[in-house]
Amino acid sequence: MPALQWNSGILTLIDQTKLPTEVTYITTDDYRVVAKAIKELQVRGAPAIGAAAAFGLVLGAKELLTLKSEDFVGKLTEIAGYLKSQRPTAVNLFWAIDRMLSVASRFDSAQPDAIYRALEAEANTLAEEDIAVNKRMGAYGAELIKDGATILTHCNAGQLATVDFGTALGVIRAACQQGKKIQVYADETRPLLQGARLTTWELMQDNIPVTLITDNMAGFVMKKGLIDCVIVGADRITANGDVANKIGTYSVAILAKEHSIPFYVAAPLSTFDFSLSSGEQIPIEERSADEVTHIAGKRIAPEGVKVFNPAFDVTPHQYVSAIITEKGVIYPPYSENLQKIRE
Amino acid sequence: MPALQWNSGILTLIDQTKLPTEVTYITTDDYRVVAKAIKELQVRGAPAIGAAAAFGLVLGAKELLTLKSEDFVGKLTEIAGYLKSQRPTAVNLFWAIDRMLSVASRFDSAQPDAIYRALEAEANTLAEEDIAVNKRMGAYGAELIKDGATILTHCNAGQLATVDFGTALGVIRAACQQGKKIQVYADETRPLLQGARLTTWELMQDNIPVTLITDNMAGFVMKKGLIDCVIVGADRITANGDVANKIGTYSVAILAKEHSIPFYVAAPLSTFDFSLSSGEQIPIEERSADEVTHIAGKRIAPEGVKVFNPAFDVTPHQYVSAIITEKGVIYPPYSENLQKIRE
Repeated sequence: MPALQWNSGILTLIDQTKLPTEVTYITTDDYRVVAKAIKELQVRGAPAIGAAAAFGLVLGAKELLTLKSEDFVGKLTEIAGYLKSQRPTAVNLFWAIDRMLSVASRFDSAQPDAIYRALEAEANTLAEEDIAVNKRMGAYGAELIKDGATILTHCNAGQLATVDFGTALGVIRAACQQGKKIQVYADETRPLLQGARLTTWELMQDNIPVTLITDNMAGFVMKKGLIDCVIVGADRITANGDVANKIGTYSVAILAKEHSIPFYVAAPLSTFDFSLSSGEQIPIEERSADEVTHIAGKRIAPEGVKVFNPAFDVTPHQYVSAIITEKGVIYPPYSENLQKIRE
Repeated sequence: MPALQWNSGILTLIDQTKLPTEVTYITTDDYRVVAKAIKELQVRGAPAIGAAAAFGLVLGAKELLTLKSEDFVGKLTEIAGYLKSQRPTAVNLFWAIDRMLSVASRFDSAQPDAIYRALEAEANTLAEEDIAVNKRMGAYGAELIKDGATILTHCNAGQLATVDFGTALGVIRAACQQGKKIQVYADETRPLLQGARLTTWELMQDNIPVTLITDNMAGFVMKKGLIDCVIVGADRITANGDVANKIGTYSVAILAKEHSIPFYVAAPLSTFDFSLSSGEQIPIEERSADEVTHIAGKRIAPEGVKVFNPAFDVTPHQYVSAIITEKGVIYPPYSENLQKIRE
């Protein structure tokens, strides 16, 4: 099941906050529902957020067809800003919305109907491209994976984080499809447990062997020699190869380095932000204390306790062995080699 | 509130599985209830387990007073073995029981009443010594802590992990009592959340500022420059200075090294196992998958998922900046300096 599907003006999202205990769907033609789904992580994962926002803008455009045509572009831009404001770290959200706006800008603003149809076509293209890009990344990345390898992953960079197939889990899927025997260790990924809830669920559906561990067990399993490489996704990669990804990724990267285990990042070019020279410039979203003090609605910490809850961290490029993209595998020096791929 | 109290043949334990949402007590004169409390972590923390087991043996001895005196020592040894079998990693459990048995062995086995009274006196001494030892460790350890320091700790090595005062948190308490302004970051410590549930609760009761983070945020807060040192407790320390402690400690030690942050271990001599030359020889307890797949009774991972759940890990001595004991602060080389303190 893809994370999202578009059918005749209706967007269907799998509600990822309910997995794995309930498989429920959000079916909507209202961009506000899409915005809320992004903010509340019902849809999450950088590429999936980008695609959901693109379809969200299509839904927004549809509502504007009843307005006077001279108001159309202004209002569309407002909705675009509203969708963009839902989450600050993953760059695919901004990339997708900007790509949509650039399509709109090619039209005379007095043609709302034409703009609407072009936007819908563009969102569909973007979603199809995401799947194709993931499959290309999978093919390149699988070359790095030996038969019999055991791979540690953090958070969920799978089907559910993209339109379909996945980035980090796409590489694992591609290696399995080549007939390689692969095993996965999944960090549970507190606070929101995307590893425990989503990565295990996805891999079990595909019959890929997976073992769940808590985040603080990663060092121990590495020391036991159980891990051959780490593969994670990314929410934003800067021009020097620094990688923003789910909180805890930085710790995993340090642990991998200490155990001489390769640390790979799988991310499409839409995740790169060449306007930033280093990861220190990436805004890090801080989320509600409740995500830490409550699990599945149950309080697990004292009332009134102070909490720090950054949703992402930045892994400096020195810790990254290679970045897997749809244009091939990029090795250090990243500033140079990423610039080449961009050109 | 101390983790355990003995009063006229009744042992009272605070039920640590219920904290912080419920403060409830286990009051018992049955060693089987004590054994179960140890196994199920209603009482936990190496020194607290040792003291609880010592009083458990006193309760066991009391039941034997109705037996024929020639059976007394044999049955007492059986109960001692039963208490010891509840958890494999923390050495204080074995240390406490062996200390009790050595007291019993000083008596003629035909004097069950005298043995019983001596065991009760020994358990009380052991418990009082634990508090005194923690306070001495606190005094030595506090010298390492600068005024204004922010300290990261993992799991709970506090009042609740000892008879009272604590090992790692004892050092923090002692520094605060010296008038130093100290702040603490507490790792939540999955799977059983001793940091989120117990460390925060203890420190908040003492008005020591504490911020709760998930385990995978430790690297990020270190990188932000928020942490001046790490202090943790220990479940067993081998002759070369390797430290078994709650799962995740090893990862924290690597992160501390990578950020050039001192990593301190606070542990009484009862936690040292000089019979083992290195940490690789320490048996690591693996616990039920349910601890990972369920939180507060709620399922958070798919049914049937494979889980790895080691309760401890071993931090090699190379990562340990110093070990704080009741005989002073020990620095590397540990094999040499621990041997000295032993003599």
